[in-house]
Amino acid sequence: MKKIKGGITAPKGFQAAGIACGLKVSGKTDLSLIFSEVPAAAAGVFTTNQVKGNPVLVSQANLKNGRAQAVISNAGNANTWTGKRGLKDAFAMAEITARALGIRENDVLVTSTGVIARPLPMIKVRSGMRKVAKKLSRQGGAAAARAIMTTDTRVKQIAVRVGNITIGGMAKGAGMVEPGMATMHAFITTDAKIGTPLLRKILKAAADKSFNMVSVDNCMSTSDCVLALANGMSGTRVGGRATKAFVKAFEHVCEYLAKEIARDGEGATKLLTVKASGAKSEKDARAVVKALIGSFLLKAAVHGRDRNVGRILQAVGATGAKVNWNKFKFNWKIGAKEDIIAVNLGVGKTSAVGWGCDLSAGYVRINAKYHT
Amino acid sequence: MKKIKGGITAPKGFQAAGIACGLKVSGKTDLSLIFSEVPAAAAGVFTTNQVKGNPVLVSQANLKNGRAQAVISNAGNANTWTGKRGLKDAFAMAEITARALGIRENDVLVTSTGVIARPLPMIKVRSGMRKVAKKLSRQGGAAAARAIMTTDTRVKQIAVRVGNITIGGMAKGAGMVEPGMATMHAFITTDAKIGTPLLRKILKAAADKSFNMVSVDNCMSTSDCVLALANGMSGTRVGGRATKAFVKAFEHVCEYLAKEIARDGEGATKLLTVKASGAKSEKDARAVVKALIGSFLLKAAVHGRDRNVGRILQAVGATGAKVNWNKFKFNWKIGAKEDIIAVNLGVGKTSAVGWGCDLSAGYVRINAKYHT
Repeated sequence: MKKIKGGITAPKGFQAAGIACGLKVSGKTDLSLIFSEVPAAAAGVFTTNQVKGNPVLVSQANLKNGRAQAVISNAGNANTWTGKRGLKDAFAMAEITARALGIRENDVLVTSTGVIARPLPMIKVRSGMRKVAKKLSRQGGAAAARAIMTTDTRVKQIAVRVGNITIGGMAKGAGMVEPGMATMHAFITTDAKIGTPLLRKILKAAADKSFNMVSVDNCMSTSDCVLALANGMSGTRVGGRATKAFVKAFEHVCEYLAKEIARDGEGATKLLTVKASGAKSEKDARAVVKALIGSFLLKAAVHGRDRNVGRILQAVGATGAKVNWNKFKFNWKIGAKEDIIAVNLGVGKTSAVGWGCDLSAGYVRINAKYHT
Repeated sequence: MKKIKGGITAPKGFQAAGIACGLKVSGKTDLSLIFSEVPAAAAGVFTTNQVKGNPVLVSQANLKNGRAQAVISNAGNANTWTGKRGLKDAFAMAEITARALGIRENDVLVTSTGVIARPLPMIKVRSGMRKVAKKLSRQGGAAAARAIMTTDTRVKQIAVRVGNITIGGMAKGAGMVEPGMATMHAFITTDAKIGTPLLRKILKAAADKSFNMVSVDNCMSTSDCVLALANGMSGTRVGGRATKAFVKAFEHVCEYLAKEIARDGEGATKLLTVKASGAKSEKDARAVVKALIGSFLLKAAVHGRDRNVGRILQAVGATGAKVNWNKFKFNWKIGAKEDIIAVNLGVGKTSAVGWGCDLSAGYVRINAKYHT
């Protein structure tokens, strides 16, 4: 596996674009489009929040056939809790995009992120969709990655090559990011030839180890999704012995994007990496990791470079994980840009890793005034 | 029930004192003693954190006989994760207090709060205990309530009279406050004549509805406890028809102290009261209340007076509670000192109420530098 330049348009046959259609008051780009020159095998994992954004419902419906050719995404408005009109708007986004691209409506996936419970200004979105379709290019990956951002402070993208196959990815995160679910917006493209069932399996396993082990603020979004498109244009099939190397590269892309989301959490100044080992079960290891990356107190201590071991004991002790307290060990490395906390539960041999960030006054500032 | 002046020394036969023994760098008072002139029926509820402070273990042991006559409490050091020496120190606190008061060692309860994983400076504590025992008085309630404070900004105490019986209470909270457990430090005294089994039952039920429905930061402490002492000196027995009025007054004291803890949470500028109704079960109602009072995003929105309904939807949707989303209703009253959020799940008839506070930059400031 080799890291290369670029993001979602690095694999063969993928084009993208990002434009401003007026959803963001700031005037920044807010509408992005990913297009595969041929229909691609497609899979997705979505939020398990009871309240789901309308675009989530549309993407889930359009993924049933295991195929997709485009992803249209807007930032600035989540099109969530917007009733029947909102669902109609989300389907219209797929329809208009399909018409602009000359592809099937149910081959378009839709994602939206931003404010909840406000109708999507469809006049802006309609004209924006026609405009963004015309801007598609093989160099458009970074522009698309920028146009999905909300309170993110930087573009998150990656591309890797494994043999003849390229995998690209982009993501947005920032706030309302919580582990244990299909979380955040992430998009992974590849020119590998792969069947939808295998792609689904690989995506689910990779998301579980990466996006689902990230927390910025314990708040599960209503719009989270990770989408993967494989268009086969490398001509190289994933299967048999070659699968392992592909999975490793795919997981690397997911982990990179997940860490980027944590590192760029709202108000974050540092990445917090937590490793739990010596656990009886994976469930226990994950529970401990999540308790630590989710702790208000620990996050504030990381922010203040205050190696307060009480914060670790408090958080681990509050979980239901089996711990041998006589053998319990911990280590806390404070770095300039990353803190690494390792705990050993002294019981078994299972481990897990996850990523969070510090809690700063910046998080409060951003979310105290997010809506207004 | 009538509210009267004072706190834990308002009921007959209770004395208290608070002094500085040098545990707090600030020089503020940090050692408090409650004393009942006669042995009292006693009950306690404690943290369910796997890691328990040594004083918790001592108090649990000394409560087995259902009786207590004194409570010695220090602030500034939690005597937690301090090994065998720490347990010895906690037992020594009971022993020295007993000797100073001329009572039985196992009639002394011990509580400590403050930094974790640092040995208790016993030289200071030993001389402090002898000193505080000499300062006991019937007017000492407020001094005791002050000496249990850590990052609390004000004394929390209350006294009520119901017929011939008086109930007094004091509490500390501030940080590491999480619902669903026996939480925080609270002390309730009464001159009612009441058997230990009934006192235990009343305390457990009252704590469940009050202290266990409060969250400052979702972080369950290792030292939490609520202790109740009933010395019978009013001469009035609780039982039969009179029980109801006593329970109501007792619950009022618990609820008052619980709300005071939320209102004075670290960095808090506002109380957040959350009511969930229309729930299928009490479990659902409580889960929704806790999800709302525990949400980073909602707490930040309350701080910023940003009536962002997405924060409510996100938090309720992330719970497993049964919700009829077609009937779901919510209301958010923004006040100068209190926000009240009411949600109706549209399913059943059960309800619950809980209390939290806003998330401010002050919380981050306090906890980024707590230890150092």
